[in-house]
Amino acid sequence: MTYCLGLGLDAGLVFLADSRTNAGVDNISTYRKLFAWSAQGGQREPRALAVMTSGNLSVTQEVIALAEEEIAANGPDQDGGLVTILSAPSMFRVAERLGGLMQDVQARRGPSLAAAGVSSEASLIVGGQIGAAEPALYMIYSAGNFIQATADTPYFQIGEFKYGKPILDRAAKPGVPLADGVRIAALSMAATLRSNLSVGMPLDLAVLPVGAHVWSMRRIEAEDAAFAAIASGWDAYLRNGLSTLPTLAY
Amino acid sequence: MTYCLGLGLDAGLVFLADSRTNAGVDNISTYRKLFAWSAQGGQREPRALAVMTSGNLSVTQEVIALAEEEIAANGPDQDGGLVTILSAPSMFRVAERLGGLMQDVQARRGPSLAAAGVSSEASLIVGGQIGAAEPALYMIYSAGNFIQATADTPYFQIGEFKYGKPILDRAAKPGVPLADGVRIAALSMAATLRSNLSVGMPLDLAVLPVGAHVWSMRRIEAEDAAFAAIASGWDAYLRNGLSTLPTLAY
Repeated sequence: MTYCLGLGLDAGLVFLADSRTNAGVDNISTYRKLFAWSAQGGQREPRALAVMTSGNLSVTQEVIALAEEEIAANGPDQDGGLVTILSAPSMFRVAERLGGLMQDVQARRGPSLAAAGVSSEASLIVGGQIGAAEPALYMIYSAGNFIQATADTPYFQIGEFKYGKPILDRAAKPGVPLADGVRIAALSMAATLRSNLSVGMPLDLAVLPVGAHVWSMRRIEAEDAAFAAIASGWDAYLRNGLSTLPTLAY
Repeated sequence: MTYCLGLGLDAGLVFLADSRTNAGVDNISTYRKLFAWSAQGGQREPRALAVMTSGNLSVTQEVIALAEEEIAANGPDQDGGLVTILSAPSMFRVAERLGGLMQDVQARRGPSLAAAGVSSEASLIVGGQIGAAEPALYMIYSAGNFIQATADTPYFQIGEFKYGKPILDRAAKPGVPLADGVRIAALSMAATLRSNLSVGMPLDLAVLPVGAHVWSMRRIEAEDAAFAAIASGWDAYLRNGLSTLPTLAY
């Protein structure tokens, strides 16, 4: 399993991904599920984007590998004529290109996986900013189709999403500052880590402030004191808050 | 779908159940899923117990109907010689009797349901107190086997449990007062109602303070102001609390 979430805030994008893959509880591994790119020079506008992956690992790795191959083929100045995820003119076209790669991989691998009784299901979250256009956040499905996050529901989740959804519904509004967005993402992840063994540390955090065109990224290891302090501080805050609520008569 | 939860606190038991059943999103109905009994007189110790149900509605209704039939056959003084859920000498024996009824129903209905491609899966939460013995809380599975809640995890959930689990893990400790237990249950239910259309109002709330031997019960309708105030008050409290947490560097 997996848990990745992406928040699209007015102040920028917040991505957080776990790194556990598993084939049964006795066969777990660590794989990065968050991939980021940025381009500052050349003939195109500055841009940064990142992708998070969930589902069949061979499928998502192949999608990422094909995307990397196209970027390399296009040349370092991004001007080889290919529309890659790093040279597309808009985030909509980035999502479309990723969806196309997903369709290609599904067409090539889906039938043989199905014959082996293995699901080829996979999904991606992609977000970024190109030039002065607004940052955008998309979710891409196995069929290659995709949807965009809007202010009503300014987040996407892939993988084991249920445990971490209530805090997002309650707190993840477009206007919250980036630092609060990072805290919300951490709390959503902490709730999931506690309840699903197939979601595990370390985590990959990536933040893209509006206009920065470069991701601030770091890995959060299992022993990270700040992450633990957020989770335990929240436990204490919640317990203290119960008595401030109205009484429900019984 | 369904969401029911039972908390086993030092101060007593808190049960909360939704009332929605569905066969597709375009075919929903309201059915009570919480059933309570108490007996104060006769030759046995005073007692109160309640059952919440999840899964195949025909199966759980038949289990409850059989339990009621046995209670009636035993006579009003509970002394007809049958070990019913209302005359059993301990909560362990109550759970065993319910598990036996579940096994009977599964044996009678399971094969024909399976032949029709319909799941006969069902589960029950049962809790109560008999005389001066400690209140006890059990979960009963389709196979009739059962487990008891302990202080480490003093709650059970059946149905759509994931959305409402983080608040329980963070706040549902044996030592919390009954009023806080009711608030915790309400918050867990509110998180589930928001995310799963197949869980719906009205709710049935039942509280059994230690030594009372009678449930305080009420139905919470969709327009209940106190329930709404708890959910909205919590949203505000959570949003205010984010800035009190440590910063997670990025």
